Amino acid sequence: MKRIGMLTSGGDCQALNAAMRGVAKSLFNAKEDVEIYGFLNGYQGLIHGKFRLLTYADFSGILTKGGTFLGSSRTPFKTIQDIEADGIDKVAAMKQTYYKLQLDCLVILGGNGTHKTANLLREQGLNIVTLPKTIDNDLWGTDMTFGFQSAVNIATEAIDCIHTTAASHGRVFIVEVMGHKVGFLTLNAGMAGGADIILIPEIPYDIDSIVKKIQERHERGSAFTILAVAEGAISKEDAALSKKEYKKKMEKYKYPSVSYEIAEKIRKKSGLDVRVTVPGHTQRGGSPCPYDRVFASRLGSEAGKLILKGEYGFMVGYKNREMVKVPLEEVAGKLKTVDPKSSIVKEAKMLGISFGD
Amino acid sequence: MKRIGMLTSGGDCQALNAAMRGVAKSLFNAKEDVEIYGFLNGYQGLIHGKFRLLTYADFSGILTKGGTFLGSSRTPFKTIQDIEADGIDKVAAMKQTYYKLQLDCLVILGGNGTHKTANLLREQGLNIVTLPKTIDNDLWGTDMTFGFQSAVNIATEAIDCIHTTAASHGRVFIVEVMGHKVGFLTLNAGMAGGADIILIPEIPYDIDSIVKKIQERHERGSAFTILAVAEGAISKEDAALSKKEYKKKMEKYKYPSVSYEIAEKIRKKSGLDVRVTVPGHTQRGGSPCPYDRVFASRLGSEAGKLILKGEYGFMVGYKNREMVKVPLEEVAGKLKTVDPKSSIVKEAKMLGISFGD
Amino acid sequence: MKRIGMLTSGGDCQALNAAMRGVAKSLFNAKEDVEIYGFLNGYQGLIHGKFRLLTYADFSGILTKGGTFLGSSRTPFKTIQDIEADGIDKVAAMKQTYYKLQLDCLVILGGNGTHKTANLLREQGLNIVTLPKTIDNDLWGTDMTFGFQSAVNIATEAIDCIHTTAASHGRVFIVEVMGHKVGFLTLNAGMAGGADIILIPEIPYDIDSIVKKIQERHERGSAFTILAVAEGAISKEDAALSKKEYKKKMEKYKYPSVSYEIAEKIRKKSGLDVRVTVPGHTQRGGSPCPYDRVFASRLGSEAGKLILKGEYGFMVGYKNREMVKVPLEEVAGKLKTVDPKSSIVKEAKMLGISFGD
Amino acid sequence: MKRIGMLTSGGDCQALNAAMRGVAKSLFNAKEDVEIYGFLNGYQGLIHGKFRLLTYADFSGILTKGGTFLGSSRTPFKTIQDIEADGIDKVAAMKQTYYKLQLDCLVILGGNGTHKTANLLREQGLNIVTLPKTIDNDLWGTDMTFGFQSAVNIATEAIDCIHTTAASHGRVFIVEVMGHKVGFLTLNAGMAGGADIILIPEIPYDIDSIVKKIQERHERGSAFTILAVAEGAISKEDAALSKKEYKKKMEKYKYPSVSYEIAEKIRKKSGLDVRVTVPGHTQRGGSPCPYDRVFASRLGSEAGKLILKGEYGFMVGYKNREMVKVPLEEVAGKLKTVDPKSSIVKEAKMLGISFGD
Repeated sequence: MKRIGMLTSGGDCQALNAAMRGVAKSLFNAKEDVEIYGFLNGYQGLIHGKFRLLTYADFSGILTKGGTFLGSSRTPFKTIQDIEADGIDKVAAMKQTYYKLQLDCLVILGGNGTHKTANLLREQGLNIVTLPKTIDNDLWGTDMTFGFQSAVNIATEAIDCIHTTAASHGRVFIVEVMGHKVGFLTLNAGMAGGADIILIPEIPYDIDSIVKKIQERHERGSAFTILAVAEGAISKEDAALSKKEYKKKMEKYKYPSVSYEIAEKIRKKSGLDVRVTVPGHTQRGGSPCPYDRVFASRLGSEAGKLILKGEYGFMVGYKNREMVKVPLEEVAGKLKTVDPKSSIVKEAKMLGISFGD
Repeated sequence: MKRIGMLTSGGDCQALNAAMRGVAKSLFNAKEDVEIYGFLNGYQGLIHGKFRLLTYADFSGILTKGGTFLGSSRTPFKTIQDIEADGIDKVAAMKQTYYKLQLDCLVILGGNGTHKTANLLREQGLNIVTLPKTIDNDLWGTDMTFGFQSAVNIATEAIDCIHTTAASHGRVFIVEVMGHKVGFLTLNAGMAGGADIILIPEIPYDIDSIVKKIQERHERGSAFTILAVAEGAISKEDAALSKKEYKKKMEKYKYPSVSYEIAEKIRKKSGLDVRVTVPGHTQRGGSPCPYDRVFASRLGSEAGKLILKGEYGFMVGYKNREMVKVPLEEVAGKLKTVDPKSSIVKEAKMLGISFGD
Repeated sequence: MKRIGMLTSGGDCQALNAAMRGVAKSLFNAKEDVEIYGFLNGYQGLIHGKFRLLTYADFSGILTKGGTFLGSSRTPFKTIQDIEADGIDKVAAMKQTYYKLQLDCLVILGGNGTHKTANLLREQGLNIVTLPKTIDNDLWGTDMTFGFQSAVNIATEAIDCIHTTAASHGRVFIVEVMGHKVGFLTLNAGMAGGADIILIPEIPYDIDSIVKKIQERHERGSAFTILAVAEGAISKEDAALSKKEYKKKMEKYKYPSVSYEIAEKIRKKSGLDVRVTVPGHTQRGGSPCPYDRVFASRLGSEAGKLILKGEYGFMVGYKNREMVKVPLEEVAGKLKTVDPKSSIVKEAKMLGISFGD
Repeated sequence: MKRIGMLTSGGDCQALNAAMRGVAKSLFNAKEDVEIYGFLNGYQGLIHGKFRLLTYADFSGILTKGGTFLGSSRTPFKTIQDIEADGIDKVAAMKQTYYKLQLDCLVILGGNGTHKTANLLREQGLNIVTLPKTIDNDLWGTDMTFGFQSAVNIATEAIDCIHTTAASHGRVFIVEVMGHKVGFLTLNAGMAGGADIILIPEIPYDIDSIVKKIQERHERGSAFTILAVAEGAISKEDAALSKKEYKKKMEKYKYPSVSYEIAEKIRKKSGLDVRVTVPGHTQRGGSPCPYDRVFASRLGSEAGKLILKGEYGFMVGYKNREMVKVPLEEVAGKLKTVDPKSSIVKEAKMLGISFGD
């Protein structure tokens, strides 16, 4: 008999339900008896002891559903100080719930912040298995995360739609794609949508280089230009600032987001009509794409296997086309980013895409 | 032998190409010889004599393509003064092109602004047939315009995506839908997406009524609320201002759009986490939906019929499930809006949807 | 206090859940107390007394879901003899359940067969309100049925996909669209997908006319041709047969469906490579399109209004852009079909589409 | 100065245009002058000297378009005898065109049959670079082929649609997925669509095992079952036959395809209502998904790189997340199939999916 806790934490994304279904089905189909407790709204449910005993029926029909049926919330603490905020020791509270329910293992689905907390709980002696959830694909230790490909699809659809209107009006269009620190999503959606310029946090841009590219296109007869811009795109000047200087500069920042800043600069330097579109949270929502459904199901199934074997302390990942278990201490606190010298960036440049560098 | 000019004017939308294909195919398939001249970038092409003689091949394979292969531009004049701006008499220039090409008729695809100009050209003695293009469905004289249903689909998809993320995080979400003066698009996308609150220009809102609705939902256990808000949504106080007072107030307006204003107000009054999503120009783009393809093709075909019969001065419209010809002077300058007492609004209210009134 | 029964009958389609949600929400939001009993699997649930008392939660989150959460089954009897088949008097059994539950009204969602039975129950003294459900749009008394537009979308997507492969290989492709007796679905999907030939039951075809059209296209340089063929497409010879002769002929029919017969004939007469694609039941499935979601919600809401007023014996329909109540005796047993002389057929012909006539 | 020939051969699929655009853009953006000749309809264009000099404009706007703008045809010969069929030596004819145009290299996009011919041309001294195109993902030497993920999406959508209708009627549904010899497509679409039973050529099925699974589901209260069946699914008895015996048996085969055979067997053994759906060629068509657009663009770009370096005789492939060049002699004549003992099959079984074995 195994008693399993399960929670989803951080920003939601597609295929969270598919992944949980994968864990549950692989456990329920095993010979051993299994009880699965679902904690509501992420770590909050664990802290405050809010949970539900889940049955087979809870996991039926959820493969194709977006969001998470358990609810989610942001990570409960970013700093050690946070741990005791709100008058309770959150780590102690989580441990208490875990032991009270006599759990054998806690399955945690989340991204970077979530994994820091998961690793902290592991250090505290809890048995943890995690699954890599994020539309950013920025988790260390795995080639892919679920949610990413679905988000690429939605961001690409937005660029596709903008393409026809941009072409009809001869305009410059910026589509702002999610990703504050990491550009995988923007890079892939930009390439898939046929963006002419792609700006990502890993490759600081030079506004003059961007304007030059746009003008070259106009001279060649292409009356429109599309930019795929990550939320965290940064100029060379800003990238050169110290963290403190940058923070100070940002205090006076007047734009709703970086795309509006870039739009204004292009407008001023080129005189062209520039429009901004921000698909925003739609990128996290809707039904997961088939790729994510299969991938999340597989990850879930592998998590089930680890639990049945009693192997804890791992994130299930995917490396070189094989399912792998990655020690949580190797994952926590690390970020996977786009290498400006990687093959895909070089290929994009060969296709004529500018990164504004 | 007929010589036809064709142009698309105003903001682009889906099925412009389908409509032009409809006109062209019905003419090319007729017994009479027909030449079709396509003017580039809307009235600009007519003013400056920029055109192309179009062949059958130009209309092949464009049924499913978004945008307009002729390009578009905003209406050349909003006031009489505009007519002679830029040192040329634009009306005279348009007439000159028309007569120089010895056109029998000009087919114009556009929305409200476009129809004003089209009617002015008619008054100047040109033969005009128009087609009702707009995602807003706000043209007088027709029950439906092409582009509308495709835009409803895209706006609804955005709400669908937001639904899963809103539900997962227990948030209030505002999806801003296109429509500065008219709410058909927001009303339909809101109902299709299952929005809880729909705000449209025709029904001024009371912020307290909105907050109350949200709080009632939370009390009943619905942890999230979705608002579909038209770009032109307006509060009761603002609606009560004179045009002058309102204009003055707007000069100091600090929000990127009305949704951000409403979001801030809800946040302040309820303490809840409110997010805004703006699908923006994506609503005009992408492949037209089957409804719009059929509808635009039919309108185009009827336009062809009028031209072959030599019946000019009409917009082809759709009334009570019949194709009709509407005199241009009846269309120009009028707006079709959502009647707050109409059947669909009452039905929406019966479903529990609040209009904030 | 009102006690309502509800059931869905006949082939399922999109927006059944949306329609039921519309009925339920409008009733639950009314001042009066309402109990809604859902019968499982269509009339079978009514006959055998299988039902569930439904709550607000049952109707939450189902707006976008395909199928019917109550389940469905084919109409229980086609002939009077059927009524007492299986050893029970089915009509008596249905009445018994109705009176046992002390129902005020039965809400029935279905198509043609369903409406015959609904009217029979009305004649037996039961209070009935119905909603027009069918992908065929062949119900008398309403301009539109829900499910139709969603099915058009899926059939059109199939034609869209076939378009690229047909063009790449220079092939003749037949896409078989649902519709045994009525061609609205094929006509609309065919026009939306840019089919070159459309065959519907209402317009018998001449195989030579079809082959001629294909050959003309090939001579003009169009290396491929796409036919949208209704399941019930019929040749002129077969249409001229008496019912008895036709039935006899069909006994020896060797093709899986009419498309394969037409394919073989074209192959023999033209020597061309002809392929058949049958999207089949996919046309009934998946999430309803926004149009159907709005339309079904509105119909449901109007049904709620009738029930609250105690007006029974009607189908809620849509005529000339108004919601109407149509007496059941006017609906039952009648079929709405494509008029070969209607405006849309003429327009399609002007676009160059052949109906094989 | 480089002179390049290009052709697409075999069944078309999504992202062929994207791949060609990738090759062309990377070459046109290089410093060296490049001429690209496009051969029409596959090897037929090469044999008969039908080609077009392609410009930058030919590759503009085709990233998102399905099919191949060059047209395609089946491989010109399956046996040595075919080479001289039709009174011409096809290999000699192809060589003649190649030398007449003074080509430096021939870029060939295709699947298994295509690669055999490509390798033969290489053996004859022509410079060849190939790209792996097939919805089956069965090419040796690469982890992935373009077209595959798009086909998975379409097949999954079909299963999604069938899901709602199967659930509403309590039916057994078979969705037949493309793949005569290899099951990757069926396996992935089946897992993504939540199929209960997946039958692929690599894992022969036992009909009794299938019926047992269906009955177990019904006993547990699941009123419906969905099977994803590859075109090449085979029973254990048939798999045990010699090639000769099997061929003989197939001569009398009475079903349109294997799904109908399986449907009849299930019907007979279980008495249940079983329906078959065949999405067929739709799986090859429509706009490529973002994954395929990016992947095909990258492959094309890498092909451009090889050509610029003068490295010939390779297929560009993708192994362990790196772009690789695979010698054509290693690719030709080999098939990549689903390993019944692979991780993904085991995971699927843990999820409760039956393979009928």
